[in-house]
Amino acid sequence: MPGAALEGAAAAAAEGVRVVLVGDEAVLGPRLASLGPGVELVHAADAIAMDDHAADVRRRRDASVVVAARLVKEGRADAVVSMGHSGATMAAALLVLGRLPGVDRPAILANVPTSRGFSALLDVGANADAKPQYLQQFAVLGSAFVGAVWGVPEPTVGLVSIGEEPHKGNELTRAAHELLVATPGIRFHGNVEGRDLLKGTTDVVVTDGFTGNVMLKLAEGEARELFAWVREALRSSLPARLGGLLARRALRGVARRLDPSEYGAQPLLGVEGYAFIGHGSSDAKAVASALRTASRAVTSGALERTKAALARLTAPEAPPRAPTR
Amino acid sequence: MPGAALEGAAAAAAEGVRVVLVGDEAVLGPRLASLGPGVELVHAADAIAMDDHAADVRRRRDASVVVAARLVKEGRADAVVSMGHSGATMAAALLVLGRLPGVDRPAILANVPTSRGFSALLDVGANADAKPQYLQQFAVLGSAFVGAVWGVPEPTVGLVSIGEEPHKGNELTRAAHELLVATPGIRFHGNVEGRDLLKGTTDVVVTDGFTGNVMLKLAEGEARELFAWVREALRSSLPARLGGLLARRALRGVARRLDPSEYGAQPLLGVEGYAFIGHGSSDAKAVASALRTASRAVTSGALERTKAALARLTAPEAPPRAPTR
Repeated sequence: MPGAALEGAAAAAAEGVRVVLVGDEAVLGPRLASLGPGVELVHAADAIAMDDHAADVRRRRDASVVVAARLVKEGRADAVVSMGHSGATMAAALLVLGRLPGVDRPAILANVPTSRGFSALLDVGANADAKPQYLQQFAVLGSAFVGAVWGVPEPTVGLVSIGEEPHKGNELTRAAHELLVATPGIRFHGNVEGRDLLKGTTDVVVTDGFTGNVMLKLAEGEARELFAWVREALRSSLPARLGGLLARRALRGVARRLDPSEYGAQPLLGVEGYAFIGHGSSDAKAVASALRTASRAVTSGALERTKAALARLTAPEAPPRAPTR
Repeated sequence: MPGAALEGAAAAAAEGVRVVLVGDEAVLGPRLASLGPGVELVHAADAIAMDDHAADVRRRRDASVVVAARLVKEGRADAVVSMGHSGATMAAALLVLGRLPGVDRPAILANVPTSRGFSALLDVGANADAKPQYLQQFAVLGSAFVGAVWGVPEPTVGLVSIGEEPHKGNELTRAAHELLVATPGIRFHGNVEGRDLLKGTTDVVVTDGFTGNVMLKLAEGEARELFAWVREALRSSLPARLGGLLARRALRGVARRLDPSEYGAQPLLGVEGYAFIGHGSSDAKAVASALRTASRAVTSGALERTKAALARLTAPEAPPRAPTR
C-alpha cells in the first residue's frame, strides 16, 4: 500500500495536483525526492490499522488520518484523502472538521456507472439506520455535489423504494417521500426501484446507508460475476473463443466502464471540508484517481454550493410580505 | 394475458400437470376443448385488475384469485398460481389459507441465478418493514423450501448485512443475527453482503422485504443493462461485430441463465398451502414454468417439511430430564 500511495501521489502531482503525504517520515522521507517537486511530506507518528477501531481516532491524535484532517481544518490542505480504514477516516473527518450546519449525519456518495452516464448513490454506508430527515439532507448534499463537481445543471433525485407510487415502501421511505416533495432547491423525481440504478433514471439516488451499501456491493459484485460468466462462455467452444478474440477490445471497454478504480475514492458529504474515502486495496491508479477527484471537487467549489443549499433547507419560510400599495 | 395463460396451461398439462383454470366461463369455456384433456375450468365471475386494491379480495369473494385459493383450502387443488396482481394474490392466500403456526408474516422467495447455481432470496417484497423474528422465520421457511424442492441437503443461510462481522449492520440485522445463531435446524453461515448474492455464497439469503425487493430488481435490472452494453459493444466495430456473430450462441447461454421466465413464479411461504406469484407480464413459457414449479413443490412435500421445521422453532426447550437412578 505505501508503494501504491507513493506512485499514485507522484502521478497526480505530475498532472499538477499538489499532494501532501501524511505518514511516517522514516519510511516516506527517503523516497520523497523521487516523487517529483509537487509532493511534500508531513510527519505522522501513528497510523490506524485496518483492524483497529474507528473510535481510536479520538485518542490517537498523531494517527496519519487525524493529522491529515487537521491540515484541512487549519487550511494547510484543501482535502483529506484516505485509502485506509474507512470508518476511521469518517470518524476523523467528523471529529476534526465537524458537521455542516443543517446536517445530522454525513453520507458517503458513490459514483455508479449507468446506461446514461453516472448516478450518485448515497448513503452507501455511513449510517446503517436512517431517519426521514437524513434522507432529505442526503438529497440536498448529493444534488449540490453532483451539480458542482459533475457539472449536471439541475440534478434529478430519486428515492429508493419498492414501487413508484409515493405510498409504496417502508415507514422510512414513505415519510422521506413526503419531506422530499416539499424540499426547496432539489429536483425530486419520486421513488425509484432497484432496476433504475443501472438504468440511470435519476442523477442522484438517495437511500439509507444499509440499503445503499447493499446496492453498491451488489452492483459491483454482479458486474464481476457476469463478466466471469461471459469470459467462461467465450472459452466454451472454438467459434466462441475466436469470437471472443475478435471482440476483445470492445468487451474490454465495457469492463472498463464498470471499473471502480476509475473514480478512486468516494466523498464524505456533510462535513466542514473535503474528505474522500478510498478502497483499502487501492493500486497506484486508484490513488491517483482519488487525488484527482478530490482536486476537482475543491476547484468546483462544491462545499460553498452545499452550504448555500443547506441554508435554504434550514431557513424558515419567508413570511408573506404585506402588499405595497 | 388470457392467451398466455391458456397456452401455458396447455403446455404444462401436456407434461402431466393437472391444471384447473379459474376465470370467466364465457371467455375461457369456448377455448377449453383445444387445451387438451389435462385442463379443467372453474368459473369465477370477477377478477382483480392490476390497478385494483389488494384489500379488495376481502369483499370480492368471486374474484378468480380468491376462488382459486378456496379450491386449495377445500382440497380441490394443490396449489394456487396467479400471474395477476401480486398484492391481491398474497392477500387472498393469507385470507383464505391463513398463516402457518409459528409464522408472523409470510415471505416471497425468489430464485436468483448465481455463479454456483441458484440462491433463494427472501423476502422480496411481502413485508417492507420487518422485525428480527420475521427474519428468523424466513430462514426456516427458506431452508425447508430449498431443502425439499431444490433437493439441497443442508442449505446454508446468509443474513444480508453490510459487513461480515455479527455487529455490522443496522438494528434489525444485529438483532436478527443473534436469533439466527441460536435457531435450531438451520445452517446459519453468518452475514453476507451485496456482493455475495451473485457469487452464491449461501443457498438461502435472508433479508427484509424492502432490501430484498431492491436487491432482486437491481440484480435483474443490472443483468439487462449490462447485456445491452455488451450488445452495443458488439456493434461498435467490424471485428467486434464478427466476434459477436461467432460467440452468439455462447453469449445467448449466459443471457438464458439470467432469464426470470425460466422459473415462472415465486412461492409465497408461510401460508397453509402452496401459493405462487408470477409476473403480470408473463408469456406462455413463464406460465408453463410457473405451473411446473408449483407442481414440483407440491410433489416434494415442502409444506410438511416446513411445518415440521416451524414446530421445532416454536417448541419450548425440552426440560432437563431428572436423571434416572
